[in-house]
Amino acid sequence: MRNLRLLLEYDGSRYHGWQRQKNALTIQEVVESALARLTGENVRLIGSGRTDAGVHARGQVANFRTSSHLPLRAFVSGLNSLLPLDIAVLEAREVPPDFHARYSARAKTYQYHILNRPQRSPLQQAWVWWLPQPLKLELMQEAAAMVVGEHDFGAFRCRGSCSGSPRRRVLAANWQRQSDSLLTFTITANGFLRGMVRSLVGTMVEVGRGKRPLSDMQALLQGSDRSQAGPTAPAQGLVLVGVVY
Amino acid sequence: MRNLRLLLEYDGSRYHGWQRQKNALTIQEVVESALARLTGENVRLIGSGRTDAGVHARGQVANFRTSSHLPLRAFVSGLNSLLPLDIAVLEAREVPPDFHARYSARAKTYQYHILNRPQRSPLQQAWVWWLPQPLKLELMQEAAAMVVGEHDFGAFRCRGSCSGSPRRRVLAANWQRQSDSLLTFTITANGFLRGMVRSLVGTMVEVGRGKRPLSDMQALLQGSDRSQAGPTAPAQGLVLVGVVY
Repeated sequence: MRNLRLLLEYDGSRYHGWQRQKNALTIQEVVESALARLTGENVRLIGSGRTDAGVHARGQVANFRTSSHLPLRAFVSGLNSLLPLDIAVLEAREVPPDFHARYSARAKTYQYHILNRPQRSPLQQAWVWWLPQPLKLELMQEAAAMVVGEHDFGAFRCRGSCSGSPRRRVLAANWQRQSDSLLTFTITANGFLRGMVRSLVGTMVEVGRGKRPLSDMQALLQGSDRSQAGPTAPAQGLVLVGVVY
Repeated sequence: MRNLRLLLEYDGSRYHGWQRQKNALTIQEVVESALARLTGENVRLIGSGRTDAGVHARGQVANFRTSSHLPLRAFVSGLNSLLPLDIAVLEAREVPPDFHARYSARAKTYQYHILNRPQRSPLQQAWVWWLPQPLKLELMQEAAAMVVGEHDFGAFRCRGSCSGSPRRRVLAANWQRQSDSLLTFTITANGFLRGMVRSLVGTMVEVGRGKRPLSDMQALLQGSDRSQAGPTAPAQGLVLVGVVY
């Protein structure tokens, strides 16, 4: 059996996230169906992790085992002709038998895009959170700096999600002004709790709007209750940029 | 009667261009309908010019006359709540009675985006032309430089479109590499023939692929037949950036 690794890009708008579900269309299911058609096998895809409903990816990684002898380029072009236009395979390579897209991952990078201007944007709506209120980027950057390091992120996970340790190590977290109106948050960590980036963004936006003091961030990072953090930012602003192995 | 000027952004994917048509949905019609609902009047919108089916705009300008006394901000927020998500009003202002979005325009700027990488992109597909073949950007930039100045652009207009003088003055024309895979062509001119930017791009791409010598560009700019120029690049890569008055 070969162990193959795919690099995937997708627009998550139409999907209920990565992970296969009984009554909703997911990216995993669509790619597995395309793989089944290509190889004639029942393929089980292992993703680097879930992306939630509506979240996008520029660099999701997934692996699968196959006895197919198709060349690697056939997995790229073959899958791309079978997949819908909102999902694409960017690369396929053979990896050692013990490579596991989820357990072998050492770090992941996400970006979150905010459109900060008075009017909504038809051309950017699919991948930004539109916020017309003024935001103080310097304060948001100070909040981001506090996030770097190992912390208890229990306050920044989805309500109802509470399995496993809430400790994660954030390697980098930064806000950047890409243009007059586009703000981008980039975060790299050794792992993410469910909803972590979006609730960090929701909290930092409250700091940037002056609705919450910077000192709150410090307190929340000592492992407060979820109810103390800010709201979860909407899914469409989030994109999984890449996974480090 | 007040003369009001709107600045508009739209994603042209769903529309048969700007200009009202009998049997197809256009942006002009959708905005005029929203204006009619807002003002209770039959409003006739004058655009700075047509954009073709599938072409986008970040800065289309249009004006109209109205006896409505609504404040300007109501034209922005009121229209944006009536318009679909793929059309938005960015700004409304009152202009002198003789302002005419089309006849008063002194120059316009368009951009054309090419995605130049082996695989298609789900996240960028709506606004790029995907070309997997290698392109020599330096050659395309040399071709762009030849376009600057006053020329007979008769070779670069839509087949069957032949009213009026084919002479236009191009003030600036440049290719830029925005990232590893994204190439952007920006052109400013005192006016554009129908299909002019897209057939210039189609021709420059043939130069960039080595399928056509640079000297062809020079010959085409002396007013050759349409059949001598390259193919028309697809609509979704083109965006009207702004109009100068």
